[in-house]
Amino acid sequence: MIPAPAPGISDLVEGVLARDSRRIGRAISAAESGAGIPELSRRIFPRTGRARIVGLTGPPGAGKSTLALKIAVAWRSRGRTVGVVAVDPSSPFTGGAILGDRIRMAEIYTDPGVFIRSMATRGTMGGLARATSDAVDILDAAGFDVVIVETVGVGQDEVDIIRTAETVAVVLVPGLGDDIQAIKAGILEIADVFVVNKADREGADRTSAELAMMLDLTPDRQWRPPIVQTVAPRGEGIPELIDAIESHGAWLATSPEGRRRSTRRARARLLALLEERFHRTIESRAPEPDGLEDAIVKVRDRSEDPYSAAERLFERLVREPAVERV
Amino acid sequence: MIPAPAPGISDLVEGVLARDSRRIGRAISAAESGAGIPELSRRIFPRTGRARIVGLTGPPGAGKSTLALKIAVAWRSRGRTVGVVAVDPSSPFTGGAILGDRIRMAEIYTDPGVFIRSMATRGTMGGLARATSDAVDILDAAGFDVVIVETVGVGQDEVDIIRTAETVAVVLVPGLGDDIQAIKAGILEIADVFVVNKADREGADRTSAELAMMLDLTPDRQWRPPIVQTVAPRGEGIPELIDAIESHGAWLATSPEGRRRSTRRARARLLALLEERFHRTIESRAPEPDGLEDAIVKVRDRSEDPYSAAERLFERLVREPAVERV
Repeated sequence: MIPAPAPGISDLVEGVLARDSRRIGRAISAAESGAGIPELSRRIFPRTGRARIVGLTGPPGAGKSTLALKIAVAWRSRGRTVGVVAVDPSSPFTGGAILGDRIRMAEIYTDPGVFIRSMATRGTMGGLARATSDAVDILDAAGFDVVIVETVGVGQDEVDIIRTAETVAVVLVPGLGDDIQAIKAGILEIADVFVVNKADREGADRTSAELAMMLDLTPDRQWRPPIVQTVAPRGEGIPELIDAIESHGAWLATSPEGRRRSTRRARARLLALLEERFHRTIESRAPEPDGLEDAIVKVRDRSEDPYSAAERLFERLVREPAVERV
Repeated sequence: MIPAPAPGISDLVEGVLARDSRRIGRAISAAESGAGIPELSRRIFPRTGRARIVGLTGPPGAGKSTLALKIAVAWRSRGRTVGVVAVDPSSPFTGGAILGDRIRMAEIYTDPGVFIRSMATRGTMGGLARATSDAVDILDAAGFDVVIVETVGVGQDEVDIIRTAETVAVVLVPGLGDDIQAIKAGILEIADVFVVNKADREGADRTSAELAMMLDLTPDRQWRPPIVQTVAPRGEGIPELIDAIESHGAWLATSPEGRRRSTRRARARLLALLEERFHRTIESRAPEPDGLEDAIVKVRDRSEDPYSAAERLFERLVREPAVERV
């Protein structure tokens, strides 16, 4: 049964489709709330699927935010509209300007062809992945040609989020050393484009060479991620980066990998929604006799082991696959 | 219904309770597997609850692994047995020795009073949190007096894992600058002790002072986290760090916060198990007609929005709270 539309939902839908910044912002705020945007999603989802979704990830301090802005500006100058979703607690988009950056922020912020939004990153990460996908849908439905998702790429959840992008650019900086080691396994898998940012620093060429060597170790890949050097504040390398992202998009469109990724995105999305829904159900039923709250006390006091308690709770919550119990 | 014990489970239980390294290792490997250790947990859980669980977290490169080893050695010299669980893809515990460190690793590794284990961090993070708690239980049941959990503290999941510790030491290094900003919000909440490691570097006192200033901003806390400077490879500050951890433990024992944390740990544990169980159920039922696989295709092809699809799947999986359907 479809619930009756909340008051104002049509206004929100209209605002999103008309690319009205204020109502886009309200829609994303709604996506950040616990229940998400079931009704809005139903209404705008048919209008999605046109935007290019680009992920930008890398360790804190790699300059991702400045890079995202510079990419947005450069893409604008190519006549494309750009939305930016920052999923990064250290993102400067929340508040003010980027320190030391010479972009005239006001110019970007007043351009209706650019929309920048920082996601609230507190609370459960499962919900954050879901809310980020919703935000991307909203910007997609609003008609932005490109949507950039910026995350600080360290934990598994950030990797999950960035995997919702079609093309993932992994941003590194020269002399990262041990940190490269730390994230290497993860980034090798997710990078479609490597960015060596702050390339005016010593060691940029070495970092690029190390990446190239890493790529040489797995020569049988269908797409070899290009390595682009950038100096974001000066705009150096940005056109090349955009070209690399566009090339990857063109390749995806002709490769079975494109469909595989769409399928993977849809799966991740559904699982995130299901898990969040499950979590809400558990919480709402927690106070029942022999429910979660009672089980917590038992496990805390070690009168029941966590597996037995969880299994007991689970059996009460979930239907048997074939025979439905009375 | 309790399933029949797997062959060898009694041997595993015995091995754990006898603190046999080889069988402890096997038990933790079992915990890392998809289904976890339902039977083992049931058998050893009554023997848990005696170990001091200490979390050690901080950004990559803060020197957490060396610190963990030095703490282990120092606690050993106070007559305590110590287990270390590293949940850190960059942890050197997996393979060899710590570069540049002068500890004679062999001495530690052959001491039956020390057990060091690196968790496999690939795969779903939800499962990792669960597996880490299981590993802590195994070491607790094995009679280790102290169990140190080391994580790279960046993502929300790592914060969730470290929250399973009783006392959390957050490790920083001088001159972290922006990174401190990035993790500040998170660490302020979780730190019981601050460690400024690599304190022989320039800026150690300034980092300590900045932390102290940060703490001054929230003066109404019941426990003010002490700030300890360490130079881990030289062992400097390690006794003071252990004292700080012990003080926090003593405070917890007399404060309602101790019980609050136990409750929170039990809750996190049950939720992790339930979510993992739910995930397994979804996957096992995915190929059913109108199941997850069909829904993925619909969402991918945009013929159904993700919320509607997830709701439909969820209603099939989960029982209604009051009336059970036939």
